[in-house]
Amino acid sequence: MNVLVTGGAGFIGSHLVDCLADRGDNVTVFDNMSSGRIDFLSHHGDKVRLIEGDLLDLDAVKNAMEGVDLVFHLAANPDIRLGTRITDTDLKQGTVATYNVLEAMRVCGVEKIAFSSSSVVYGEASEMPTPESYGPLFPISLYGASKLGSEALITSWVGTFGLKAWLFRFANIVGTRGTHGVIFDFIHKLKADSSRLEVLGNGRQEKSYMEVIDCARAMVHLTEKTSQSVNCFNLGTHDTCSVRRIAEIVVEETGFKHVNIEYTGGDRGWAGDVPKTMLDPNKLYSTGFTPRYNSEESIRHTAKALIEEIGL
Amino acid sequence: MNVLVTGGAGFIGSHLVDCLADRGDNVTVFDNMSSGRIDFLSHHGDKVRLIEGDLLDLDAVKNAMEGVDLVFHLAANPDIRLGTRITDTDLKQGTVATYNVLEAMRVCGVEKIAFSSSSVVYGEASEMPTPESYGPLFPISLYGASKLGSEALITSWVGTFGLKAWLFRFANIVGTRGTHGVIFDFIHKLKADSSRLEVLGNGRQEKSYMEVIDCARAMVHLTEKTSQSVNCFNLGTHDTCSVRRIAEIVVEETGFKHVNIEYTGGDRGWAGDVPKTMLDPNKLYSTGFTPRYNSEESIRHTAKALIEEIGL
Repeated sequence: MNVLVTGGAGFIGSHLVDCLADRGDNVTVFDNMSSGRIDFLSHHGDKVRLIEGDLLDLDAVKNAMEGVDLVFHLAANPDIRLGTRITDTDLKQGTVATYNVLEAMRVCGVEKIAFSSSSVVYGEASEMPTPESYGPLFPISLYGASKLGSEALITSWVGTFGLKAWLFRFANIVGTRGTHGVIFDFIHKLKADSSRLEVLGNGRQEKSYMEVIDCARAMVHLTEKTSQSVNCFNLGTHDTCSVRRIAEIVVEETGFKHVNIEYTGGDRGWAGDVPKTMLDPNKLYSTGFTPRYNSEESIRHTAKALIEEIGL
Repeated sequence: MNVLVTGGAGFIGSHLVDCLADRGDNVTVFDNMSSGRIDFLSHHGDKVRLIEGDLLDLDAVKNAMEGVDLVFHLAANPDIRLGTRITDTDLKQGTVATYNVLEAMRVCGVEKIAFSSSSVVYGEASEMPTPESYGPLFPISLYGASKLGSEALITSWVGTFGLKAWLFRFANIVGTRGTHGVIFDFIHKLKADSSRLEVLGNGRQEKSYMEVIDCARAMVHLTEKTSQSVNCFNLGTHDTCSVRRIAEIVVEETGFKHVNIEYTGGDRGWAGDVPKTMLDPNKLYSTGFTPRYNSEESIRHTAKALIEEIGL
């Protein structure tokens, strides 16, 4: 199968590329290399083609669609907090980029898209664990708005132009090659000063985590096993982990003995942060997929791996 | 109160301006006059200020925000079907325009926005009557995607920058000054040829209708009576009316005796059309508001009025 992966040189994208290459697909990566890294793909040699380009350049996106059977659209602004400073970041790199992917697909006759949405579309959900059918959808971050805006564009392309789509609403995805996120940040802070660890908020924020290879395998699995016109799945685990517990696990894994964990206070890490998310993953599980790690195991596995990657 | 109404020279917007002017507000209209008409506002004389401008011009939007207490953001592409031919129409005139309104509000310190969303955000809902809490939200038209994308931007501005918002999910709104829509189309067809009326689809599409002055009054009422951070309401009536019934009512009101009503067939009027919508209006009704007309009464009232406006 000919597969195009936008954001395929990034954290989650490159793990997906590994899964697709293992399956024997012809994989093309489209990435602007803003947070993607060539060494996340280099082990594939010539077997994976990399197009360095910008999704806001519609002609470039159209050119990349030649002969493609399935698009995994994972590219997005990776820095959620940036969106509150430069407020059109997520609109452009999320919603408008998704429009360009869809429009290029329509023009080039490509019929299947799988999209990395997020649990942030649920906003501050009143129902937890939160199922895919939850409403109303009131995202509170600009990143979340771009994910819901992109989902809506995709379902409208399904309804209007006959596409088939998979919407994957990710829990917090963690693992090797991570280039941002709470574990990554904690390790960098401890590397700079092993006597203290500053945690944004009161540490009681509590979220579902999924290990990145589990996430990549789940995406491939679902595009093989489900075939509605719109296939929407939470990708996560049954449990949650608090930021407080993550800080403890990271400190344990560093081996540092006298770290003072300090909390800046408040119930959010930043404006637009959702204090608690807990996804209902039963729809995913019902398709025969089980992740290897739960939330806490994913955190510990990731802490070990990133400490090795980053070095202390 | 200083109120800015985007799209205020249009069909629904101009009726809203009438209500706000009656209340004694200082009203400024921002409209690109693509479907708005100066004579929908001229009876206000100098009491309503008109800024002719484009919401895609962020500086112009910022200039219009000076001293504003509340924004009613109603401007949008009025021609849903156009969106399937020029596929970035709704993205730009819907989602991106809403971003500019929000960004201008943020920069200028304006804190309240009321937005004309639509029942199309529900897509082909499995639950009818459809309540505001319905999920998942999979709109099937590009217009619907732009409405959900705009809602998401608004709730993200609430969550990130502390705005207060009203989201009004409109039923099909009909009434005087209508410039498009099924009744308008039928009258124009009958004016051209009183012997036959061609109806797109099989005529069994069935939707909730609300009369435009009821709609305008409901918007003003809700901004006065509700004050959550996000106030989301269906604006509609308890019943529905089929396209078949609308055709009959319009023919009756023309007085033409020998009209052959012909159906093109198929369960949709066009790609992206939702065959059946029925909103649950109980949340609106629970605030003490009751529309003057139900769906069928709204249709008949509108047919009479538009026949008079258009002339046969």
